[in-house]
Amino acid sequence: MSASGPDLSRFAVNQITTRDWTFAQAVDGYARAGVRGIGAWVQYVDEIGAAAAGRMAREAGLFVPCLCTTAWVNLADPVSYRAALDENRRRLDMAAEIGAKTLVVVPGGLATGERDLGAARRRVAEALAELLPHARAAGVALGLEPLHPMYAADRSCLSTFAHCLALCETLGEGTGIVADVYHCWWDPDFAAGLERAGPERILTFHLCDWLVPTRDVYQDRGMVGDGVIDIAFYRSVLDRIGYDGPFEIEIFSKLDWWLRDGAETTRIAVERCAPFVAPRRQAKAA
Amino acid sequence: MSASGPDLSRFAVNQITTRDWTFAQAVDGYARAGVRGIGAWVQYVDEIGAAAAGRMAREAGLFVPCLCTTAWVNLADPVSYRAALDENRRRLDMAAEIGAKTLVVVPGGLATGERDLGAARRRVAEALAELLPHARAAGVALGLEPLHPMYAADRSCLSTFAHCLALCETLGEGTGIVADVYHCWWDPDFAAGLERAGPERILTFHLCDWLVPTRDVYQDRGMVGDGVIDIAFYRSVLDRIGYDGPFEIEIFSKLDWWLRDGAETTRIAVERCAPFVAPRRQAKAA
Repeated sequence: MSASGPDLSRFAVNQITTRDWTFAQAVDGYARAGVRGIGAWVQYVDEIGAAAAGRMAREAGLFVPCLCTTAWVNLADPVSYRAALDENRRRLDMAAEIGAKTLVVVPGGLATGERDLGAARRRVAEALAELLPHARAAGVALGLEPLHPMYAADRSCLSTFAHCLALCETLGEGTGIVADVYHCWWDPDFAAGLERAGPERILTFHLCDWLVPTRDVYQDRGMVGDGVIDIAFYRSVLDRIGYDGPFEIEIFSKLDWWLRDGAETTRIAVERCAPFVAPRRQAKAA
Repeated sequence: MSASGPDLSRFAVNQITTRDWTFAQAVDGYARAGVRGIGAWVQYVDEIGAAAAGRMAREAGLFVPCLCTTAWVNLADPVSYRAALDENRRRLDMAAEIGAKTLVVVPGGLATGERDLGAARRRVAEALAELLPHARAAGVALGLEPLHPMYAADRSCLSTFAHCLALCETLGEGTGIVADVYHCWWDPDFAAGLERAGPERILTFHLCDWLVPTRDVYQDRGMVGDGVIDIAFYRSVLDRIGYDGPFEIEIFSKLDWWLRDGAETTRIAVERCAPFVAPRRQAKAA
């Protein structure tokens, strides 16, 4: 931390956190607050086009840790499935154009009427293998995000860090992990997974908090510091393995933060996250 | 299935499913519906005393697969912690008196103000080790129930089947697993865990369903058949490993089933569960 404030060089706000802001408003609001990056979402980029969005972020000096998210590929109907793959190729190109190194993979849960979660997971693995050549050509990584198990049916069947990491190991170059404390904090194997993944495979790291009680399954995530997640511990694990990548706050909160002005949410996000997002201290003896 | 209806000899209703019924009403209602067992809860037994509850179940010919649950032991204050252990010794005795072979372990999540989930898990392991001699003397197993990760903060820090099984292996005789499809269905390692546990370590198997959408984190569990869990698949896994133990429906549903009459809930539970609770067919060649 310098005299002028915390070092936010690794810190981005994921724009869903300020849901009511346009892309331009988010770029402006984050830059004013000293935030150095913006996690982008497709619907905001589509409003102005990827070229304009990329230019805005560059001119404001903001890095773009990721673009959220893939279109769901968990579709039993072959025509819809092919269309989803095409849409995801478009999103990979969009990510490249706005300077995002990662497209976050949220593939959907079960197909309509489906109960076979194993089949859904195999379908996702196949879809990712099909997308991978396009991702490599675009220079954009497929960022597999383990989502909380409570979303396994209807948002993502990628439910554990270990499962995502195994998929990355199978798929190889051009894939990695988007880790989010909200989704993984409960997992007895989360820290070990981070260590096994290593710093290269962790594409970006999302910050959030788990509220007690959680009043809504999907949109009651907490501001850093308001919940029970031991973020300092996970930061220490990331330091130990040599992770130097982005930290990104991402909150879905229809009951609180989405009701506030984006500038207030951003200001408080900076205050709360500052202790956890500083550059890694180099070992003295190095 | 005989001419007189499905074989329900392995089937119990966990009495929280008919929340508004007393123990006596539940015993009567289940027996009338042909159900052969009752999963008991402490608060209902306390209303009439363990001796009376045990007598009622025996006279109605109902087996008692388990008593729910332990008092929470995740308490940082030593005095409260000792008191919780004493209360759990009382509950082990209660289980023995009503003929329940298992006391279901739901140990709590984090202590108040605590963020160290690893410490909470170690505390639970210590508490179980302290209770184990009493459990063995009472002839009642400590049934570790992996609870859904969305309850890790405030209900149980035992979040995965693998974690519970490892604890059982450490603790040894007098411990086992209470498996519930609601809590484990999302887990890519659930089926492998059942196989590794083997039939002896699975004390009872709970049936329920995962609703899409889930409108409440705690009390919106679904009737078997109304959700997305592939119960037939898990039944096939249990058959393959030779599980011959109880099946027990357990539903927390403040938005639906708890609003209905217990007799209606019981009748529909029997209809829905009948296909999944039959005795295991012996291999022809055996």
